[in-house]
Amino acid sequence: MEALKQRILEDGLAIGTEIVKVDSFLNHQLDVAFIDLIGQEFKQRFGDIMPDKILTMEASGIPVACFAARHFNNIPVIFAKKGLPSTMNEGLYHARVKSFTKGILSEARVSQKYIQEGHKILIIDDFLAHGEAALGLISIVKQAKAEVLGLGAVIEKEFQGGGARVRDLGIRLESLAVIQKINDGVITFR
Amino acid sequence: MEALKQRILEDGLAIGTEIVKVDSFLNHQLDVAFIDLIGQEFKQRFGDIMPDKILTMEASGIPVACFAARHFNNIPVIFAKKGLPSTMNEGLYHARVKSFTKGILSEARVSQKYIQEGHKILIIDDFLAHGEAALGLISIVKQAKAEVLGLGAVIEKEFQGGGARVRDLGIRLESLAVIQKINDGVITFR
Repeated sequence: MEALKQRILEDGLAIGTEIVKVDSFLNHQLDVAFIDLIGQEFKQRFGDIMPDKILTMEASGIPVACFAARHFNNIPVIFAKKGLPSTMNEGLYHARVKSFTKGILSEARVSQKYIQEGHKILIIDDFLAHGEAALGLISIVKQAKAEVLGLGAVIEKEFQGGGARVRDLGIRLESLAVIQKINDGVITFR
Repeated sequence: MEALKQRILEDGLAIGTEIVKVDSFLNHQLDVAFIDLIGQEFKQRFGDIMPDKILTMEASGIPVACFAARHFNNIPVIFAKKGLPSTMNEGLYHARVKSFTKGILSEARVSQKYIQEGHKILIIDDFLAHGEAALGLISIVKQAKAEVLGLGAVIEKEFQGGGARVRDLGIRLESLAVIQKINDGVITFR
């Protein structure tokens, strides 16, 4: 997605060799009109599939998943929760997920009510780095005996290997911007 | 908002005297078309103000804030973060916030880059219970020497006092559904 690559180059901040900060428009401050275009792009890339629901990870996957859902006939979005609210006490699927940027291990949970056997699920997230969140979400869909139709990532950092891990599972991956390397503040796209 | 009250009665689950679960459409599984209507309602209620930005709390405030922003000419949304990503290291505003449903104390953070002196801010959140999150967000806006034009809550649990605390600060509050009490599984609206 050309407009996304341009936006990353203009407003993103490359740090060291591992991190690109896009918190001015994607994951702290949100440019909702732009994220809606991202949602539309996911619909184009996945135009041939008919998911029942979109699954994402809180928190920064939520805006992208919501705007994508608008373009998929307003199908429901489910976001996996990392905390454990007292209101969440019924049957849960869970997966242990390590956050790359926070460096902490957390438990992602989804209520069994909302993903059921046979559901066709599209997974959407903001970043695909080492693939921890993606693999956790895939595991949750498998626990439900539901089907992953595909995984859409806004930004894939190819050099961290998450994309390869997802494809190795036979899962179709669409990344809107693929970063090959980050070096001395310079971002190189594939 | 009549459609919201109906939806709470149909799909919500009242537990004890304190909790109403709306995770089938508002804060775990998301009905994006319905949340867009909620956003439209906020625009109607706050039709006379012109905020520069919308501020919300991760995670479940995000969808409501995003869809509200669409109806306010796509103004930016900022969500306060509860974790501390390694990518967030510059100047931060923070507020200590106790989650009613999770029972834990966390630190909400907003980058100083995104709220600045003189900004006019609309705060949006899914629930207003004891007011902890609301007061934390108000404190963050004040730290920035910015102005709170108003606070919009999807569901206010009036009996928990958060609404009174917000109004006592002289802040305009619009709650789309106000719950007066919860008793034996029965929800009474004001």
